[in-house]
Amino acid sequence: MQTVIIGSGNVAYHLAKAFVLNNIPLTQIFGRNEGDLKKISEELNIPYSTEILEDAELYILCVSDHSVENVSKIIIKKDCLVAHTSGSLPKEILVGDYRKSSFYPLQTFSKSKDLDYEKIPFFIEAENEDDKKLLFTIASKISKNVMESTYEKRKYIHLIAVFACNFVNHLFSRAKEISDSQEIPFDYFLPLIDETVHKIYEIEPRSAQTGPAVRNDERVLQLHEQLLQGESLEIYKTMNHSIQEMYEL
Amino acid sequence: MQTVIIGSGNVAYHLAKAFVLNNIPLTQIFGRNEGDLKKISEELNIPYSTEILEDAELYILCVSDHSVENVSKIIIKKDCLVAHTSGSLPKEILVGDYRKSSFYPLQTFSKSKDLDYEKIPFFIEAENEDDKKLLFTIASKISKNVMESTYEKRKYIHLIAVFACNFVNHLFSRAKEISDSQEIPFDYFLPLIDETVHKIYEIEPRSAQTGPAVRNDERVLQLHEQLLQGESLEIYKTMNHSIQEMYEL
Repeated sequence: MQTVIIGSGNVAYHLAKAFVLNNIPLTQIFGRNEGDLKKISEELNIPYSTEILEDAELYILCVSDHSVENVSKIIIKKDCLVAHTSGSLPKEILVGDYRKSSFYPLQTFSKSKDLDYEKIPFFIEAENEDDKKLLFTIASKISKNVMESTYEKRKYIHLIAVFACNFVNHLFSRAKEISDSQEIPFDYFLPLIDETVHKIYEIEPRSAQTGPAVRNDERVLQLHEQLLQGESLEIYKTMNHSIQEMYEL
Repeated sequence: MQTVIIGSGNVAYHLAKAFVLNNIPLTQIFGRNEGDLKKISEELNIPYSTEILEDAELYILCVSDHSVENVSKIIIKKDCLVAHTSGSLPKEILVGDYRKSSFYPLQTFSKSKDLDYEKIPFFIEAENEDDKKLLFTIASKISKNVMESTYEKRKYIHLIAVFACNFVNHLFSRAKEISDSQEIPFDYFLPLIDETVHKIYEIEPRSAQTGPAVRNDERVLQLHEQLLQGESLEIYKTMNHSIQEMYEL
């Protein structure tokens, strides 16, 4: 089975690494950024090219959403399977006479951060049963959590991930901005953050809510608003309003 | 050393438990809610009362912010130390002729959830060195992380905790609301949530930001907005606006 990964960013790197760690052969890693490709190629011992796309049965596009359509056009082979890895694109975005599919790993990827690949949920969509089976087989070598998903469902999965990951990280950024401004080490908050996450393994988040908004503690809410400004103040008001709406306060 | 905990809620329960686990003697747990007190008393083997407050050298008030002032008046003894456990109140809120202090554990407490007490940061403020030393000694038996903090600093610590804990949990609640509505198991998102938190142990949250807003991906932002309504839509817009402001997009 010949497989090529196209791209040299965070997703390409981690997917290539997951393949190598699970002894899934990779024919090539292909892309535009030679510096990045070379680094991945050397670390994982996979051939790379910026010019000649190897012949393969499966191409996996790990490029940014807005590049998927254009990059998909470089695959001129007909009898092959092409998968993109985006949470927010239909498989029909791919342009070519090949069979189209989606191979979506639900995780946040940073190159410098190691990952436990077997816990990453993979969502798969394909045109026919054979392709589906093939992608399931590959994903199941990497992860214990492989599922089928339509584009409709994938859109929602991606949206939920934005709330549970991207926005959560931004709250950490804003929290750190405040702690930096007051010379309070952000490390103080790590046990609290850990516990906030541990809790939802045992308790519904709705039942785990604490803080001034759910207590309807107007004094503290006003005190806090006086300490804030700009975007952090907007976040503070919007989140509290949403908490109070959820609990009908 | 005679110590009394006043209150029967989550903070009272966990603080009493932390005392017992670390062999710090507790004279009594005192409060209004006999049912709750009785449960704590039986589990931790500490005497309780709803009527007669025992004589002690230290009283720790674990009651809600708006009750601190009134409850503090029941301590009529003069030669003793009284501490409240609130992040957002000055020690001067306490009304009595005793010495006043603050003993603030930075954590989110739910009765049904076990905690690793030694990781909880404790912030201490007192009127004099002896009282400070006493509270430091007690807190240091429970936790490895004990610090002094003025009211000014404590206010900010509490505010940052709201962003890093209360708001993060509310994002989980809204995310779960969406996943429930689409019949997508929320468990799918737990590895992603774990990774979002693990990342900030290694990378600055500002550098770890991913998602459509920081990529300035207008197509996905608009797609997502069409899937949302009400408070979740407001959160979506506010958070993205704040992300784009932070990265000057």
